[in-house]
Amino acid sequence: MEYVFSYPELLEFTENLFSKIGCSDTDAKLAARTLLSADLRGIDSHGVARLSGYIRLWEVKRINAKPSIKIVHETPSTAVVDGDSGLGLVVAPFAMQVAIEKAKNAGTGWVSVKNSNHFGIAGFHAMMALEHDMIGMAMTNASALVAPTFSVERMLGTNPICVAIPAGSQPPFVADLATTTAANGKLEILQRKNESAPTGWIQDKEGNISTDAHELKKGGALLPLGGDRDHGSHKGYALGSIVDIFSAVLSGANYGPWVPPFPAYVPMPTGMPGEGIGHFFGAMRIDAFRPADEFKTHMDNWITRFRNAKPVTGQDRVLIPGDPEREMEAERSVQGIPIVESVYNDLAVLAEKFEVKIPPTVS
Amino acid sequence: MEYVFSYPELLEFTENLFSKIGCSDTDAKLAARTLLSADLRGIDSHGVARLSGYIRLWEVKRINAKPSIKIVHETPSTAVVDGDSGLGLVVAPFAMQVAIEKAKNAGTGWVSVKNSNHFGIAGFHAMMALEHDMIGMAMTNASALVAPTFSVERMLGTNPICVAIPAGSQPPFVADLATTTAANGKLEILQRKNESAPTGWIQDKEGNISTDAHELKKGGALLPLGGDRDHGSHKGYALGSIVDIFSAVLSGANYGPWVPPFPAYVPMPTGMPGEGIGHFFGAMRIDAFRPADEFKTHMDNWITRFRNAKPVTGQDRVLIPGDPEREMEAERSVQGIPIVESVYNDLAVLAEKFEVKIPPTVS
Repeated sequence: MEYVFSYPELLEFTENLFSKIGCSDTDAKLAARTLLSADLRGIDSHGVARLSGYIRLWEVKRINAKPSIKIVHETPSTAVVDGDSGLGLVVAPFAMQVAIEKAKNAGTGWVSVKNSNHFGIAGFHAMMALEHDMIGMAMTNASALVAPTFSVERMLGTNPICVAIPAGSQPPFVADLATTTAANGKLEILQRKNESAPTGWIQDKEGNISTDAHELKKGGALLPLGGDRDHGSHKGYALGSIVDIFSAVLSGANYGPWVPPFPAYVPMPTGMPGEGIGHFFGAMRIDAFRPADEFKTHMDNWITRFRNAKPVTGQDRVLIPGDPEREMEAERSVQGIPIVESVYNDLAVLAEKFEVKIPPTVS
Repeated sequence: MEYVFSYPELLEFTENLFSKIGCSDTDAKLAARTLLSADLRGIDSHGVARLSGYIRLWEVKRINAKPSIKIVHETPSTAVVDGDSGLGLVVAPFAMQVAIEKAKNAGTGWVSVKNSNHFGIAGFHAMMALEHDMIGMAMTNASALVAPTFSVERMLGTNPICVAIPAGSQPPFVADLATTTAANGKLEILQRKNESAPTGWIQDKEGNISTDAHELKKGGALLPLGGDRDHGSHKGYALGSIVDIFSAVLSGANYGPWVPPFPAYVPMPTGMPGEGIGHFFGAMRIDAFRPADEFKTHMDNWITRFRNAKPVTGQDRVLIPGDPEREMEAERSVQGIPIVESVYNDLAVLAEKFEVKIPPTVS
């Protein structure tokens, strides 16, 4: 059973819930918009499906609904932001805005963030740069689900990287990728269908190759992009590590196996070396390199040439990073956001508990 | 048959050759050191094996031995450098130094380069930042050998990324990776041994899966990190694209299928939209974020924890990015640089042609 909500109504519902836990109006609106950008773009695992998870983190006092988010250190092109345990959905746009302001003056801006929580999808934050004719970057660490090459232990999160690059008449280039072979959300889809996973996605708790989509619950691990050493998993491991270090070792957040878990019922790691979760943001003004119009003309040329590359048999076309998400957003803005039954039930519980009206379903 | 040269003697030989084509003493020394850093670190495909290739590019006037390398645009944290068709081996260290100087003042420095040539290994340039207590980054585009996900056509180079991060008592973290499943050098090793390649490395000229290590010569293509769509090749494709855009669309170099080929006998692409090959460099001062000592203490903790992660059966240990190359460098600095017979013959031809004495072999 699947439900469909209109985007504006689901947005209002989400805003209302964030208001109920004590967020300011501005923060509630921003947090809802950040969270639901995932649903609009088809990254269902990171959207409203996580709303109850965020609320539970607030309930156990791991999320501060009224944070005092501050710059604690800065230079002309850098800053460290302390998120004061706020919703990452609010802390991250603050930090990205700092990066953008720095870039206006210094050409680029780079902000590392500590003491934050999950920030939704990296794409939302990186794309904030586009309207300023800037390249935007966003990354975050997350609790350890990924085993480095040759490791039995989970040491890294799925640690995504997003780079958003403006174009001219073409839509922007938006690459938003977990540094694992497959995002956890894809595994969840297989779990629901009771299907097995391709090799290279996961290993079991002893570090053996596995295709059991339920392996994570049994102590197994996701694998870095590449899957195994022969297929370059040491590269995915390195990329995930870079995200971890930029997000947390630069800022003073927790890193590696010490990153706080998203589920509120999972105990916190012992011996945590930092504060909260870490993020990293970047903004580069295009005209700090060359005139923006000139750059955009060449980006249009780049995109057009790649889009027109000859496709392999059985495929219509070569995609540009960001194409599928943009097409999904165009569709769901109009047709609504589909919600699976378990998420609907979660939202219904929240609605009752916080006395917020759940929107009618469109279908 | 394999030959071994002592590093200092091979360095002198290489310097002498660069002098013979007209490089200044300073440039000849720098170019030789840059090139041979690949051999020292075990990335044999990018070292002295390519010396004759560089010389041939000079012979066809695609490399300018006396370039006037210039900053053509800048802001406090950015610059664009015009390499004036110089050896990338010289242009890249110039540009990286600009990034480092920018970082001293603005916190970070970011330099995009046009009108350059192949720059050796990314690691050499990124690691220049380490002694300044900075994080270093280096990337470059290269001629198209890689097919994007769903593409039959080769559109991207192997487009490597290196990120070098200083630590305290631990050696630095140095991730230097081509954005393909396997570097071209690994394929060349299989070709010499007449062995087949794992699936996920290459496709044939129609875009079908192939394990023939000679496929590239038959019109086939390398595959982006991930190998196929199910294993995340769209992520490797996105990463390679980001390298291409940062290196060339930001600077005004050639991009995508228009990047000039390394072999001098391969015709130049038609309709080239820019100048030469492009690179991108970054330097971030650690203390633009937090005190360097504090950062290094946490990096030591990060590295130690990851190194001590429980290994899978059959493996001794979990590696830190940069471990294998550093160990190789320690070994080869002392024991010398092994050279395969075909490369030795190449060098002997150069020695005779340019009247440079070839060093004695150590074994």
